[in-house]
Amino acid sequence: MNGAECLLRTLLAHGVDTCFMNPGTSEMQFVAALDRVPGMRGVLCLFEGVCSGAADGYARMLRRPAATLLHLGPGLGYALTNFHNARKARSPVVGIVGQHTTGHLRCDAPLAADIEAFARTVSEYVRSLEQADRMGEAAAATIDAACAPPGQVATLIVPADFSWSDGGEPRRPMGPATPGRPPGPAAPGPRAECVREAARILRSGEPAGLLLGGGALLEPGRAAAGRLAGGTGVRVFANRYAARMACGGGKFTPQRLAYFPEVAEPMLAGLKHLILVESQPPVSFFGYPGRRSYLAPEDCALHVLAPIEANGTEALEALVEACGVGRIAPPAPGPEGAPSRPALPEGAGLSPDTIGRALAWLLPEGSILSDEMVSSGEAVLRYLSSAASYDLLPVTGGAIGQGLPVALGAALACPDRKVIALEADGSGMYTLQSLWTMARERLDVVTVILANRRYRILDIEMQRTGAGEMGRMANDMVDISRPDLDWVRLSEGMGVPATRATTADEFVTQFRAAVSQTGPTLIEAVLE
Amino acid sequence: MNGAECLLRTLLAHGVDTCFMNPGTSEMQFVAALDRVPGMRGVLCLFEGVCSGAADGYARMLRRPAATLLHLGPGLGYALTNFHNARKARSPVVGIVGQHTTGHLRCDAPLAADIEAFARTVSEYVRSLEQADRMGEAAAATIDAACAPPGQVATLIVPADFSWSDGGEPRRPMGPATPGRPPGPAAPGPRAECVREAARILRSGEPAGLLLGGGALLEPGRAAAGRLAGGTGVRVFANRYAARMACGGGKFTPQRLAYFPEVAEPMLAGLKHLILVESQPPVSFFGYPGRRSYLAPEDCALHVLAPIEANGTEALEALVEACGVGRIAPPAPGPEGAPSRPALPEGAGLSPDTIGRALAWLLPEGSILSDEMVSSGEAVLRYLSSAASYDLLPVTGGAIGQGLPVALGAALACPDRKVIALEADGSGMYTLQSLWTMARERLDVVTVILANRRYRILDIEMQRTGAGEMGRMANDMVDISRPDLDWVRLSEGMGVPATRATTADEFVTQFRAAVSQTGPTLIEAVLE
Repeated sequence: MNGAECLLRTLLAHGVDTCFMNPGTSEMQFVAALDRVPGMRGVLCLFEGVCSGAADGYARMLRRPAATLLHLGPGLGYALTNFHNARKARSPVVGIVGQHTTGHLRCDAPLAADIEAFARTVSEYVRSLEQADRMGEAAAATIDAACAPPGQVATLIVPADFSWSDGGEPRRPMGPATPGRPPGPAAPGPRAECVREAARILRSGEPAGLLLGGGALLEPGRAAAGRLAGGTGVRVFANRYAARMACGGGKFTPQRLAYFPEVAEPMLAGLKHLILVESQPPVSFFGYPGRRSYLAPEDCALHVLAPIEANGTEALEALVEACGVGRIAPPAPGPEGAPSRPALPEGAGLSPDTIGRALAWLLPEGSILSDEMVSSGEAVLRYLSSAASYDLLPVTGGAIGQGLPVALGAALACPDRKVIALEADGSGMYTLQSLWTMARERLDVVTVILANRRYRILDIEMQRTGAGEMGRMANDMVDISRPDLDWVRLSEGMGVPATRATTADEFVTQFRAAVSQTGPTLIEAVLE
Repeated sequence: MNGAECLLRTLLAHGVDTCFMNPGTSEMQFVAALDRVPGMRGVLCLFEGVCSGAADGYARMLRRPAATLLHLGPGLGYALTNFHNARKARSPVVGIVGQHTTGHLRCDAPLAADIEAFARTVSEYVRSLEQADRMGEAAAATIDAACAPPGQVATLIVPADFSWSDGGEPRRPMGPATPGRPPGPAAPGPRAECVREAARILRSGEPAGLLLGGGALLEPGRAAAGRLAGGTGVRVFANRYAARMACGGGKFTPQRLAYFPEVAEPMLAGLKHLILVESQPPVSFFGYPGRRSYLAPEDCALHVLAPIEANGTEALEALVEACGVGRIAPPAPGPEGAPSRPALPEGAGLSPDTIGRALAWLLPEGSILSDEMVSSGEAVLRYLSSAASYDLLPVTGGAIGQGLPVALGAALACPDRKVIALEADGSGMYTLQSLWTMARERLDVVTVILANRRYRILDIEMQRTGAGEMGRMANDMVDISRPDLDWVRLSEGMGVPATRATTADEFVTQFRAAVSQTGPTLIEAVLE
């Protein structure tokens, strides 16, 4: 069995059955093996940043890795930005990168580059396959590294000649295989002393908060946190940059910390204790003149109930028990959202506000919502606490261009759920090639482009960094009109049917139509 | 004067007056300074890979650097692939990357990443500004590093707070400034012993070749090499992956080494000596089973007339003198091209062959031709030895997605010349955002998309790597139809008017119209 086939069989034996790829010559043996070894779904993307972002979205939904297959250092280069986001999301990803043949490496051929150096920017685990017959072992070790809690991008670099040489036997996982789930150590459970200390704080009567991240923001963690809020009065916050968050459905939902520090700081004001659950201490996105970077009050003590790599949900459930609040009903959705739905918008104008009100009514139950709305995000999302249940996939690493690929990966992971990509026109342009793969794979994604024809967030940031009024030339670097992007044509050019909405009525009609059918569509929502 | 203004003034004092940018919050001070400091042309690109590729194209034409302005590690991430190509082209580029404020760095904010590690993958010179008042010195050192022969991507990382702090005085170049040209050491001139040795070889009567790269492929080097060919019988080859090459115009032109080793090797067969002029030894693009990587015969001795960083043109001219062939007329164009033009194609079919024949007639005098045709390239370019004079900008680093950005940068550098981008449909998709900047800047670029709806080169490479017949799943990873890309809509969606040609007649009509007007247009040439 050649090395490529050994690699493919090892991936499949570990439950890695989806590969987002943009292959080249060095990866042809792997591509050829797809027909000999059944079970791997190869998904072609026309740009590598789509591969890495899709693998991130896939992992956020299934909590197990997809593979990516990329071509040499420069192919990996295009993928790094969304791998950065995957790294910050702590998404497990098995990154496979082809290398020149071992004999060709010394020649400084055009595509020669230090692949390991590229990979290390986003990957703690980087391995170059040392000899052909170690393929099975190396692939298994890479998968194990990807899956080690809390999850990471692990990279295996495979010289082309090791793909066509004898690769030895594929490696099977140690212990019994669980279908659809790669083996690997479970995230550590609760530590008794941490639970005791947190319970003591919650009982002390001092103002305290919980800050949840990672898996603690899914449905069971949300329920446990709600009981703690209801029974002890603790305030519950969500790390804004978590990978995934259960929202809506009329249930208690942690309050997401705001983007701007002057909004986030008052949310935490007065707290004497902040207890971290799978989250780092809260920090602002950027540093600004004369502002602190950390958001918690200076006299607020930080405590760790569950570190990043632990099972925060089990820790929260242990805390529920320690506090004796297991029978308490969680309170209604948090103060930031209106628990009853505002009226469905009508009429002429189209704004983030009207889109938010429309989505509060029209978001299908069980949707997955990929958010890269940037400056429009707050205004839309604040209405969605009154929406049906949905999973939010937020920005994690802040690198632009994740929204569409993450939606793509989530749709492939969860074919029975409707995926909604809410995307700004500026950020959508970095990875617009995602639309083609959505069309090819007939993925059930409704993309809404919120088109304000500017890098609007930079209008705000320009003021905040003290750069002063914007002159004509500065404005040109923020204005993405002249010419206006025509997202309907861009979408149709890649095979995704599209419409344009310029009024609230049009948006409601078009969005209703889009979610009532299956398959990819796009709405360009031109904001007033 | 704040740091951003100091940086801008230092760039301008050194003749760096064009900046391809995709800025974010950390770079707002630089953007704001554009209005206070006259002279810098800021060019907004909607994707960072366009910035780096455009800076490459600009440098290839002017042989002086543009700047790029990118946002933190992940913004640089997207740019690395085309920086790899710029590095292989030995293009001078001043890469400026914003960093978090120094106080924010310890917080592991979402966008935090090891920017130096990203930069080192493509940049030998990487500097993080150490303190605010060293801005002028650091910027000047970065420019000097970029311009040190043969040229490189040099990177300066600027923390945001150093942009809004007092930056001290801008640095002016040492010695007299030459308008439009940054100061820096000239490339070393000819070494007498190398010239003597090369002359001895050319006089020896043993079969000898010259392999030209870098600046030696421009007009004066081409003329000198032609005299040597005419006077001594030496065979003259071009490094296929050089940055730029003077072609056409009925003049002697070095023969480009072929892509596939089994075609390139016979071109060099029988040579006892190969004399390198600003070129590395010839190697094949990929390694293949049972094939050598080096292309010269095993018993062919390699000699260096001028190393990569030297002035190969002066070395060739010295060799002309040493050989006494200064009055010899260069021979007619080399054996690979037909010196008389084939008939203008007519009728139904459209193929690389018919496109090449059409371009042989229709390419405007003095055009700049950016080539990323991949599998269609050989068939088109072989007709162009009978075309009017043009500059060819070939693939250098082999990383896909350079063709459109390089055309963009070349058009900005040379506004009086017509730029033709010949681009494959597959490779065009990696950086299609280039079209928007062409529209905004009203650049005089005619883009021809050669649409064969496949990664056709991989059909060939699949066979060559011994991967065997392509099954259905493998075919899906190479077939980029289903859905077909509609390049007319994609182009119009970004503001570039476009047409589609499916016959030779249509192509001739559309190309003729495109080159007869000014400003960006696109022709989707659907190959049969």
